[in-house]
Amino acid sequence: MNMNKSLLEPSERIDDLLTHDLHIIQSDEVFSFSMDAVLLARFAGIPPKGKILDLCTGNGVIPLLLTTRTLADIEGIEIQPRLAGMARRSVELNELQKRITIREGDLRELHQETGHGVYDAITVNPPYMPLNGSDIKLNPHQAIARHEISCTLEEVIQACFRLVKPGGKVSMVHKPQRLADIMALMRQYRLEPKRLRFVHPRAHLEANMVLIEAMRDGKPEVRLLPPLIVYNEHNQYCPEIMDIYYGSKEGEV
Amino acid sequence: MNMNKSLLEPSERIDDLLTHDLHIIQSDEVFSFSMDAVLLARFAGIPPKGKILDLCTGNGVIPLLLTTRTLADIEGIEIQPRLAGMARRSVELNELQKRITIREGDLRELHQETGHGVYDAITVNPPYMPLNGSDIKLNPHQAIARHEISCTLEEVIQACFRLVKPGGKVSMVHKPQRLADIMALMRQYRLEPKRLRFVHPRAHLEANMVLIEAMRDGKPEVRLLPPLIVYNEHNQYCPEIMDIYYGSKEGEV
Repeated sequence: MNMNKSLLEPSERIDDLLTHDLHIIQSDEVFSFSMDAVLLARFAGIPPKGKILDLCTGNGVIPLLLTTRTLADIEGIEIQPRLAGMARRSVELNELQKRITIREGDLRELHQETGHGVYDAITVNPPYMPLNGSDIKLNPHQAIARHEISCTLEEVIQACFRLVKPGGKVSMVHKPQRLADIMALMRQYRLEPKRLRFVHPRAHLEANMVLIEAMRDGKPEVRLLPPLIVYNEHNQYCPEIMDIYYGSKEGEV
Repeated sequence: MNMNKSLLEPSERIDDLLTHDLHIIQSDEVFSFSMDAVLLARFAGIPPKGKILDLCTGNGVIPLLLTTRTLADIEGIEIQPRLAGMARRSVELNELQKRITIREGDLRELHQETGHGVYDAITVNPPYMPLNGSDIKLNPHQAIARHEISCTLEEVIQACFRLVKPGGKVSMVHKPQRLADIMALMRQYRLEPKRLRFVHPRAHLEANMVLIEAMRDGKPEVRLLPPLIVYNEHNQYCPEIMDIYYGSKEGEV
């Protein structure tokens, strides 16, 4: 790890990613990753090499975690300059500049730069909350990360369609409430859902996350994976969650 | 129970529905209900009174079970005369002629008789298997019940749309592999998915059934219920399955 303190700006700290000696720059005032990103980084179908893109990359947590599973070139794109800067400094901190490139930019325009159908796989942990007139009690950084301010769900899915190769995989984490929207939009943009996994905080509670993998121009047939339960009846993480956070297994979950 | 043996035809037997003293006429040569129907009859959102319709009713298992949860008028429609006859005789057997009516007919044409938007709720356990040229090694009764011979998934969903009232509920059980098709078609026919529950044979296995409830002209927001696990690690039914089969609770699951 590059322990150069000049990598940090005010309010920032360095957190341990708990696996493979990875570290990440975070800030409660700006952005901290959550379990959603960690689960997506393990769930996503990714190639052993080639080109991977992470949309809405935030502080770069997904590209960092993906380096433990693939030798592919990984790009992350983030629209907020402050966050893109954090992500770049986290890449430096981990000395992963040769494997991860952070772009500052708008996912709606990226295809103008890269061309169409250029990535083998795409991951995305998009803003979850639609903009429906409810006033947003967050600072602008948090608001853009959580609400569909800079991009709608449809724009995210359209960008995935444009940027992924035919036969390539697109993996997303989202709220189950939006499942019908997500599946309808994926089909509209020729991204066929192939694997779904629901995350339940406890075995007897409703799901609060959905992991979904789609294939561009795939055949319509989806696998519905076993439920991923976060806490057991003793309020401890279930073994699979422990393994995802701390484990060394590298396969998809 | 009306124990008149003349209600039985060759190959038929009377089975106990295990709840509320209900019995049903079955035949391995023609049709026997499976767990799918029992789970749907407990999952479906139904009104305490009004009009309920069960499409693809087979030997009438779902109408019979629904009588334990509602005082509504229940109709079942079945395209196969042999099965519609079995269903009618099961209704007589249970002396439920005042609460259940079995129609022999084609769900694609029912609206010509009943008019549009007349049912408060609809249930359907449709044929699961698409017709894709694979040869079918079943007798004609079983083939029509399991394969999309007499109606496709789209025709079933279109019939639900035509027949249910605005704001009324449509509940279906199907294979999770078809989830993307089901959700896309439901949205196309203005049936918005509102509750989803996946059934896993065991906690660590993929789902093999999905229960889905939609509302005609509903707001897009779906609840993803806790997973329903059939067997525990000792190869016994889990308590919730026991309760659904033998229990006296009458709420939705």
